[in-house]
Amino acid sequence: MSTPVTVIGLGPMGQAMVHTLLREGHQVTVWNRTAGRAADVAAAGATVAATPAAAVAASKLVILSLTDYQAMYDILGSATEALAGRTLVNLSSDSPDVTREGAAWAEQHGARFLTGGVMTPAPMVGTEAAYVYYSGPAEVFEADRETLAKLGAPRYLGEDLGLAQLMYLAHLDVFLTSLASLMHATALLESGGVTASAAFPELMLTVTGIGEMLAVGEGENPGAQIDAGEHPGDLSTAAMMGATADHIVAASKAVGVDTGLPAAVQAYYAWVRDNGYGNDNWTRIIDAMRPQGR
Amino acid sequence: MSTPVTVIGLGPMGQAMVHTLLREGHQVTVWNRTAGRAADVAAAGATVAATPAAAVAASKLVILSLTDYQAMYDILGSATEALAGRTLVNLSSDSPDVTREGAAWAEQHGARFLTGGVMTPAPMVGTEAAYVYYSGPAEVFEADRETLAKLGAPRYLGEDLGLAQLMYLAHLDVFLTSLASLMHATALLESGGVTASAAFPELMLTVTGIGEMLAVGEGENPGAQIDAGEHPGDLSTAAMMGATADHIVAASKAVGVDTGLPAAVQAYYAWVRDNGYGNDNWTRIIDAMRPQGR
Ligand SMILES: NC(=O)c1ccc[n+]([C@@H]2O[C@H](COP(=O)([O-])OP(=O)(O)OC[C@H]3O[C@@H](n4cnc5c(N)ncnc54)[C@H](OP(=O)(O)O)[C@@H]3O)[C@@H](O)[C@H]2O)c1
Ligand SMILES: NC(=O)c1ccc[n+]([C@@H]2O[C@H](COP(=O)([O-])OP(=O)(O)OC[C@H]3O[C@@H](n4cnc5c(N)ncnc54)[C@H](OP(=O)(O)O)[C@@H]3O)[C@@H](O)[C@H]2O)c1
Repeated sequence: MSTPVTVIGLGPMGQAMVHTLLREGHQVTVWNRTAGRAADVAAAGATVAATPAAAVAASKLVILSLTDYQAMYDILGSATEALAGRTLVNLSSDSPDVTREGAAWAEQHGARFLTGGVMTPAPMVGTEAAYVYYSGPAEVFEADRETLAKLGAPRYLGEDLGLAQLMYLAHLDVFLTSLASLMHATALLESGGVTASAAFPELMLTVTGIGEMLAVGEGENPGAQIDAGEHPGDLSTAAMMGATADHIVAASKAVGVDTGLPAAVQAYYAWVRDNGYGNDNWTRIIDAMRPQGR
Repeated sequence: MSTPVTVIGLGPMGQAMVHTLLREGHQVTVWNRTAGRAADVAAAGATVAATPAAAVAASKLVILSLTDYQAMYDILGSATEALAGRTLVNLSSDSPDVTREGAAWAEQHGARFLTGGVMTPAPMVGTEAAYVYYSGPAEVFEADRETLAKLGAPRYLGEDLGLAQLMYLAHLDVFLTSLASLMHATALLESGGVTASAAFPELMLTVTGIGEMLAVGEGENPGAQIDAGEHPGDLSTAAMMGATADHIVAASKAVGVDTGLPAAVQAYYAWVRDNGYGNDNWTRIIDAMRPQGR
């Protein structure tokens, strides 16, 4: 028989998880602060619990899908007596430190705890393309691996409860920053009379080409050279890329587009130039970010 | 017979162009400030001119591949009498304003002028994957289209001499910012004991997944909604993404990784939240960048 599951938090991600679990034949209990948001999943077969405590009591496996960890305290702070013997799988975003504290808090109340990060937009939950990072005690993960696998391929990273969160944030760092650059470049092109509809598909050529461009320049995995502290600049230099970063800031300023994002990029190249690394590869900018680099 | 071509500037990009043109049977004349850099292309069959004026005199079509437009003045400032009747195709990066001024300067000296941006790393010049934006007078472009096409598929954007440059910078905005985010996320993961070799292939999953993730969330071309000022947040909200941006900054700070880049992203989400757009889609951040948004 399928494991019963409780899902707390019915934002786009929570709702997608509930629908996936229902489709897979699980009995699903839900709770959400804004009660009206449960209507859809209730119609699809989920049981709506009257209180957080009742929601936790309904299933040994409790998944949290909230904006942050504060929401967990806000919801479960008054239901701590229900936590003993439960497995909480918190798939909400927060910093690794806050995540570790949250795990300790739950464990103090007798719960087992896993942290995780869903690496996919809500509509892709439960599809082939979905994967989810987890960390926490191995036996806790193994006990519910099969159920969790319904949401997406599980990638277990180890015991450190902050690690799945760190991995999630690192991915989101790339994701949010790249998306922001797409909007920034779109705003820049608007200044030249190019509409967003015309700009977007052009700019996506660069995003989708990054893999190939790196492979031809830096090799399939530039990480090895970065680990070795090697940044050979024979195909392109940080000085050249930094000059272009300067031009992007100047072009933005000239048309009144905000310079915050390109100026942050420019600052890393300026650091590289000012420290005499201009003839190195662009990957040298990592030293402008690392704790020991500054 | 193939058009003779002069290439001025023998950085990685200039050298790649010379090798491509030689392979295609063109007679190629080169000049470079640092003479030693011409050795490779000379061995491959290029003629090394003794002066910039001689280089310009050698071919009607002169391609410039320099770090910026200042380099053009530095090189051709003493060879202006050679410019009359030549077509200069400047494929160097700079701001659109500087580009337009550079074109006017060359035209004053009787030259025809095209601006352009090569959308590919040096090793991919002349391959199927390469494309190059151009703008400037249509008849000037058409006259040398066939030769220019050897470098990569030409994409002509119109008469405005700044437009190819703007398009180039918009792409590089996305490229440089995404690359910087990859290094930043790598530095973040290092703090959790993950090596760059281990981090890089993981993080590339997000880069290569962005196209699919956007397609499933925002549709094939979110540009149309952006043009219409529509930012429906039913699959994910700017508030949620902004909370994650906060977590990335906090996580960076906690381990001493520089916060410049994620803080710039965070600032756009903060603007969106502070202006009451938290329930909109993330694309709303464009209003924090647009001249009229602030
Ligand atoms: N959406 C995606 O595509 C996606 C993709 C990958 C990962 N994620 C992550 O998955 C998590 C959930 O995503 P989502 O898009 O569903 O997030 P969301 O829109 O932020 O919704 C989260 C849920 O958190 C609840 N909540 C927030 N603050 C609360 C508080 N103080 N007290 C009680 N409840 C509170 C909301 O309740 P109300 O309904 O009452 O407001 C809602 O149920 C986030 O951590 C996000 O980073 C999302
Ligand atoms: N490399 C790539 O993968 C790539 C890809 C796309 C676009 N681009 C663009 O293509 C252009 C050339 O790229 P690159 O990588 O070959 O650039 P680069 O490494 O910056 O080399 C540029 C050339 O500019 C010359 N130069 C710079 N300042 C000068 C000055 N003040 N006076 C005289 N010469 C000067 C250099 O001469 P010296 O040899 O004497 O220093 C060298 O020949 C750049 O605008 C770049 O943005 C490059």
